[in-house]
Amino acid sequence: MGVSNRHLHLSEADLIRLFGEGYQPEPMKDLSQPGQFAAKETLTLMGPKGLIEGVRLLMPLRKQSQVEVSVTDCYKLGIPPVIRDSGDLAETPGITLVGPQGQVSLKEGAIVAARHIHFSTGEAAQLGLKDKDRIAVEVGGFRGLRFDHVLIRVHETFAAEMHVDTDEANAAVIKNGQIVKMLI
Amino acid sequence: MGVSNRHLHLSEADLIRLFGEGYQPEPMKDLSQPGQFAAKETLTLMGPKGLIEGVRLLMPLRKQSQVEVSVTDCYKLGIPPVIRDSGDLAETPGITLVGPQGQVSLKEGAIVAARHIHFSTGEAAQLGLKDKDRIAVEVGGFRGLRFDHVLIRVHETFAAEMHVDTDEANAAVIKNGQIVKMLI
Repeated sequence: MGVSNRHLHLSEADLIRLFGEGYQPEPMKDLSQPGQFAAKETLTLMGPKGLIEGVRLLMPLRKQSQVEVSVTDCYKLGIPPVIRDSGDLAETPGITLVGPQGQVSLKEGAIVAARHIHFSTGEAAQLGLKDKDRIAVEVGGFRGLRFDHVLIRVHETFAAEMHVDTDEANAAVIKNGQIVKMLI
Repeated sequence: MGVSNRHLHLSEADLIRLFGEGYQPEPMKDLSQPGQFAAKETLTLMGPKGLIEGVRLLMPLRKQSQVEVSVTDCYKLGIPPVIRDSGDLAETPGITLVGPQGQVSLKEGAIVAARHIHFSTGEAAQLGLKDKDRIAVEVGGFRGLRFDHVLIRVHETFAAEMHVDTDEANAAVIKNGQIVKMLI
């Protein structure tokens, strides 16, 4: 298990608006998925009801900016919690990003990311799973539960790991690195 | 379903220390369980890492003060998240309560309440359930899940309702009044 705290991905155009022309985010920590890293840079999210500061930028850049928050965060910001698979941003809530050199009002892109499991192509094939499948996953312990509809994401660069957000982690008292059971 | 936000119960001695001798908390809203109400009064929780203001007092008074927070709240306060059935407070974390007339440092009593279902004696008998049983409950929807080990609480004054905390509610995007399915 990997627990995803709130974070965001930026397009190149939005990076320039927020940090200035030619700015290069600095790596802070490699992520478990190869080629991805958490940057030293953070931004403030500004919604109709509240602010959340210190939201981490993840790299590399993407075609479209995307903000991933928890349902708890949505209530604090004052935006509707919309659960989506990463990248599926049509008709999702907007949010304003505040950076050191400017701010950007996204028309869409603030989502609660659907829980998912990353697999390399080989790992998925071994398990008989394919990209976009959905399976159930059991978490043990006194606060145990079974997550239904867990999205399978397969790519040759991925490494096997399940990602949940902080609400889901706290509901089951899940820690980073905890082992869970796939029902397939 | 009923979603329990963070709240607290006070002993008579702690009520006097926090609000002064002879103070009577004022009812704000009746709760779903007969005889219980949310008071107008709130207190501040003070932990080693942070404060949470505006924590609602529920009445009536109890023999021992008890603070019910979410795992998210525990991280903010800096206390370990300890999941317990209500009233089972031995060796649970302490917390400081700050009121208008004084403060009280509880040696124990800060818990994450285990999810549970209230039933009247008649309702439980009809379902073949008894106090302290544990069952599983399924929540539908795109973020659906199955909560395991849900505590059954039976008392002649109770009314049928399941209670989860805000982390659990947000993990499954549960709203007050939502219907869920018991697996018995």
